[in-house]
Amino acid sequence: MNFKAHSIQDLARRIEPPNELLRQKARAHLDTLTKPLGSLGRLEDLAAQVFAIRQEAVALPMTKGVYVFAADHGITAEGVSAYPSEVTYQMVLNFLHRGAAVNILAGLHHVDISVVDVGVDADFENIDGLLHHKVSRGTYNMLHEAAMTQEQAEQAISTGLKIASDAAAAGKKMIAIGEMGIGNTTSASAITCALTGATPEKATGRGTGISADAHLHKVAIVRAVLQKHFIDSADVSPLNILSRVGGLEIAAMTGMILGAAQQSLVVVIDGFISTAAAALAVAIAPPVASYLIAGHQSEEPGHRLLLDHLRITPVLSLGMRLGEGTGAVLAMPVIESAIALYTQMATFASAGVSGAS
Amino acid sequence: MNFKAHSIQDLARRIEPPNELLRQKARAHLDTLTKPLGSLGRLEDLAAQVFAIRQEAVALPMTKGVYVFAADHGITAEGVSAYPSEVTYQMVLNFLHRGAAVNILAGLHHVDISVVDVGVDADFENIDGLLHHKVSRGTYNMLHEAAMTQEQAEQAISTGLKIASDAAAAGKKMIAIGEMGIGNTTSASAITCALTGATPEKATGRGTGISADAHLHKVAIVRAVLQKHFIDSADVSPLNILSRVGGLEIAAMTGMILGAAQQSLVVVIDGFISTAAAALAVAIAPPVASYLIAGHQSEEPGHRLLLDHLRITPVLSLGMRLGEGTGAVLAMPVIESAIALYTQMATFASAGVSGAS
Repeated sequence: MNFKAHSIQDLARRIEPPNELLRQKARAHLDTLTKPLGSLGRLEDLAAQVFAIRQEAVALPMTKGVYVFAADHGITAEGVSAYPSEVTYQMVLNFLHRGAAVNILAGLHHVDISVVDVGVDADFENIDGLLHHKVSRGTYNMLHEAAMTQEQAEQAISTGLKIASDAAAAGKKMIAIGEMGIGNTTSASAITCALTGATPEKATGRGTGISADAHLHKVAIVRAVLQKHFIDSADVSPLNILSRVGGLEIAAMTGMILGAAQQSLVVVIDGFISTAAAALAVAIAPPVASYLIAGHQSEEPGHRLLLDHLRITPVLSLGMRLGEGTGAVLAMPVIESAIALYTQMATFASAGVSGAS
Repeated sequence: MNFKAHSIQDLARRIEPPNELLRQKARAHLDTLTKPLGSLGRLEDLAAQVFAIRQEAVALPMTKGVYVFAADHGITAEGVSAYPSEVTYQMVLNFLHRGAAVNILAGLHHVDISVVDVGVDADFENIDGLLHHKVSRGTYNMLHEAAMTQEQAEQAISTGLKIASDAAAAGKKMIAIGEMGIGNTTSASAITCALTGATPEKATGRGTGISADAHLHKVAIVRAVLQKHFIDSADVSPLNILSRVGGLEIAAMTGMILGAAQQSLVVVIDGFISTAAAALAVAIAPPVASYLIAGHQSEEPGHRLLLDHLRITPVLSLGMRLGEGTGAVLAMPVIESAIALYTQMATFASAGVSGAS
């Protein structure tokens, strides 16, 4: 399966928003439960959103999956990261050996984990436990040329669409979108500037933890990348942004988010890179926004710009900046709590509790 | 067992802070794990705190309990709440029938629930499932007299101390402190003013959801209560604050928090009322502060004043204002996540991952 650009547009047009009447019905039910009106705060919003997305077909425990998309980035040649590129490969092995943060959180919260190679600069041969969808061994250096060809972008998006379809077929109801790719905050910053009009200074953070000097250098690289690709160019469609300054994992995540919305899955996004992919998916198909739950607010300044752009309030705000899907998986027990309260609490009538005056 | 004031002071003097060397050792271990330095944000603080409190003796799953202390308040005669007093009694029955929000969250997150009658204005006789520690059928109206006698305050505190001791004996390692008591935000507002010097306007919120006019009335009641009890009085010891403007459930929670700290339990506090009890416990024994984790930031404005006073950052901020221990129980999977990451993640050395440059 390899969707061409026009097929992606066709799919995008078929994505409809969740059912608004069901959301209102869920709100009305929440008001009958034995608690002061509105006193569950954001949990009430989450419950109503999930019920609208799932068209009332919600049972606990929900079958949940986290998908970690991995790829390398040509821009790392410019010294934008604190860690060498080889860490992408090493961390994929760490995921497969269940030693990384996302493995631990997924294990604790009963979330299936899938690791997808979309473009790691290493040969995994037929190693078990990895979903093999390598498009190429990393992107080109976007300071000098487009990060990928349009065909590569379409292939990566198609991979994401296929994985979304497989997730739905396997009974997943709620998915977390994570990633691993040394250098990918630089790509996310460029995407953020291209989508929101933010300046490189505002959209570029410390990534995995670079020094103040290295941060100034990274800002300059993002500025130069934007000048290379978006000055004197009228065509800044989401697909063009992806191929020029994106990453192979970001393209696959964009595809997965589009596919998940079409399959009526609850999509929990993670930090800066995951949200950049979500913002691209929403640019392609605006109704996707209503399928998204932002797991957390990361420390990356560009993440807040993207969440504001998408008008989504994050569930958690714990100063995390790790990626891998960790913030999304950590939000899942909170989201499931909202569903449990909705489905299991007594009503004022059933419990014989007096109402407010 | 009934601790007199001097016995409570003796106990307070025996409470020592958690082991600072163990906290530093935990920090050093966190820096060896396969993640950018500090990238787990607040989860790293939580893991280090729990390890210092538990003196490294942490295994998952932790045995957890939530304690819901219930009592009525004489001040409800002044029309400070949206709900009639009888709701305290009705909600205790709802807890016993497992229909309330805290029951659902405790069930989902594997937390044992205990409901304690310290002063509900109803006769439960020998109803099963309730811990019977009634001191009296509610407090006096603190607008006209002290809410309770010093003997009643001591008896309620003793109840909390005994329940903490029983919790530790039953193997609990982490406890959530919740409550039910129509009218108790008025008491918490008065306690907040007495402890922090805040004005009634700043420390008084909408409680279960009163109108703007009713809120003005509630502020006036809190101001009158403070004038009644704290003008021209040099003796504003925590025990005096408790007996004059406290509640029986708040006194029991204060005792439980003191006892839990002495037993080296991790104490997760909930919203405004739970935190008012914690602030009293810290006023009695300052080292208690280091045993506290604030489960969430509630919508009650006085809650933020108390958390600032205690210098504690809440784990969650979801706009909840329900009480019962719901925000504390909801934070438990996040706290357990921090412990799982600490104990189970691979290190850079064990996973063969390159470090930062």
